[in-house]
Amino acid sequence: MGRALALAETVMAITSPNPRVACLIVRQDQLLASGATQRAGGPHAEVMALRQADERGCVTTGSTIYVTLEPCSHHGRTPPCVDALIRAQPARVVIAMRDPNPLVGGQGIARLRAAGIEVRVGVCQEEALALNPGFVARMTRKTPWAWLKLAASLDGRIALANGESQWITGPAARADGHHWRARSCVVLTGSGTVLADNPQMNVRHVETSRPPIKAIVDTRFEVDENARIFDGIKTWVFTCSGNPEKARRLAEKNVEVVELPPNNGRVDLGAMMRWMGQNDINEVHVEAGARLSGALLQAGCADELLVYLAPVLLGDAIGMVGMQALQSLAEAQRFEFMETTALAPDLRLRARHVGHWKSLMESVQD
Amino acid sequence: MGRALALAETVMAITSPNPRVACLIVRQDQLLASGATQRAGGPHAEVMALRQADERGCVTTGSTIYVTLEPCSHHGRTPPCVDALIRAQPARVVIAMRDPNPLVGGQGIARLRAAGIEVRVGVCQEEALALNPGFVARMTRKTPWAWLKLAASLDGRIALANGESQWITGPAARADGHHWRARSCVVLTGSGTVLADNPQMNVRHVETSRPPIKAIVDTRFEVDENARIFDGIKTWVFTCSGNPEKARRLAEKNVEVVELPPNNGRVDLGAMMRWMGQNDINEVHVEAGARLSGALLQAGCADELLVYLAPVLLGDAIGMVGMQALQSLAEAQRFEFMETTALAPDLRLRARHVGHWKSLMESVQD
Repeated sequence: MGRALALAETVMAITSPNPRVACLIVRQDQLLASGATQRAGGPHAEVMALRQADERGCVTTGSTIYVTLEPCSHHGRTPPCVDALIRAQPARVVIAMRDPNPLVGGQGIARLRAAGIEVRVGVCQEEALALNPGFVARMTRKTPWAWLKLAASLDGRIALANGESQWITGPAARADGHHWRARSCVVLTGSGTVLADNPQMNVRHVETSRPPIKAIVDTRFEVDENARIFDGIKTWVFTCSGNPEKARRLAEKNVEVVELPPNNGRVDLGAMMRWMGQNDINEVHVEAGARLSGALLQAGCADELLVYLAPVLLGDAIGMVGMQALQSLAEAQRFEFMETTALAPDLRLRARHVGHWKSLMESVQD
Repeated sequence: MGRALALAETVMAITSPNPRVACLIVRQDQLLASGATQRAGGPHAEVMALRQADERGCVTTGSTIYVTLEPCSHHGRTPPCVDALIRAQPARVVIAMRDPNPLVGGQGIARLRAAGIEVRVGVCQEEALALNPGFVARMTRKTPWAWLKLAASLDGRIALANGESQWITGPAARADGHHWRARSCVVLTGSGTVLADNPQMNVRHVETSRPPIKAIVDTRFEVDENARIFDGIKTWVFTCSGNPEKARRLAEKNVEVVELPPNNGRVDLGAMMRWMGQNDINEVHVEAGARLSGALLQAGCADELLVYLAPVLLGDAIGMVGMQALQSLAEAQRFEFMETTALAPDLRLRARHVGHWKSLMESVQD
């Protein structure tokens, strides 16, 4: 299963809105064939692996098939994988994780068992979930999985008091950030960042065949129509202030303006996340200023923290997240550290929201 | 040499003001004997190892002796180790690091060579220096090596705006902090912390046979004479405001009041560090509020950062270090990350000042 998980990692940035899945066909400790999910509309992992077995002239009867997610049992853009698996007549199917998709919901497993195939579910379940938190979040809570990318000094400052912020972290950390943009379905920022830094917010430093959608939270629809972020890649502007003329002009640059209800005078971030969920978004990479990052956190919309720390202390300067002062430490949302990676001279820390992760884990338990 | 360095680690908290040193005597890949420096006034590592060889009836003639620091060649509280080594007639002595002590200054090496012994210097030099940065700092720049212990949220906040700070980090991180107190010669804090939290600032959670001296920076000599920090363990109060009566009363509690010149109306921190160097202090563990931590950093007195990060974000709250706003990122003192350790649920990061470390390294280069 470890090998299957590693294979699924290789399609991290292409399968959305489908989950990243891999399938291995094994007999007598020999790998007969393997496959991973292709771009949306293309074949799923199981079909890729069965095709390869067929091309190689391998007999799959009596084999063991490993798959990182429960095979689908419904007709989507492709026919149900479970039928293909049953035709292959394996002795055993080992599944890392139940599919939280209500259209599958354990039926894939049930149909395999009904066909007389031995099925084991829950092998490397947590690792399998970590491959697809966004897909699982969208299926179960109807919103994407979002991480805040934050680059700061060791004392949590993202810019000097005078605004200087380029660059606190080094080239390795910045390049790494582009891997995370490439993996996501949407790269989200705020109008403040667009106005102040005029960033492109696209994927550079990393190859990608499927650039993520860009999105801007812009309550008063203030962004400059000529901002560099509008480069032809699909972009959403979430706003509370309609401006049909401006929207029409921006539409020519592949920009869609989405009007959302206000919440305390600003874009309702929960409504925005639900809208993205309805629009098949699995994962959101947030790269914004302290204000939007803090607002997402306070709205309960931050599932993970992707923090790059530089080995400097800046003292009185601008903090990572702008949030109202807490009254008690008990109010703070608890995260848990997942991994620490050196990106000399900086460090990358990843942490995930304890409660949000626990909910996802429960939703895939068999 | 790796084994010798590990042995020297075991005497981390007892040898000061002497350096932590270990010595191994080896022949034909067999360890004949080993020893590490004992408490000040007790035998040095070389003598301990030679004694053990003698007790075991081992012949040291023709052996290879590994020692983590150049053997002393002067009469201190004990006779020169280099004489004892020459009497043992080894074929070869391998030394990790030159002794920066001007009383030794390569003479130990020279005398061994003059006695016809093959000497190799500089094996695992950086690791050997990491065992004794304080001793080397005191010998070369005349001040101790100081680290700032900081416990904060992931966004660098040490307390809520309302002052609540107990506890941001968990029990494992707090217990680990006591290892670092035990290792140091002085635990330094500020009068603000003493007045606000009334801490004991002693070593708990860890066994120690040699409690570090405590010290308080207290410009206006405002500490309460009945504060818990005055528990009979030797304590220094650094101040600019003499108060002979109060000093006399505190002397009964083993407290020495040290008057220092002011610098911008506050205790001159550089003068304080020089005073501690003159008083045989190798290492200073600073556990203070944002103001003193920031002042030490600005005064160039922070050599290392020992940072415990909790996986929470606190937003608008009190920062790690209080420092004047920098005008440019280029002004920031550069540190380098040394290691990252999980102390669930927290992380411990260590970083050292790039320039200060480089100076120490240069001073021990042969």
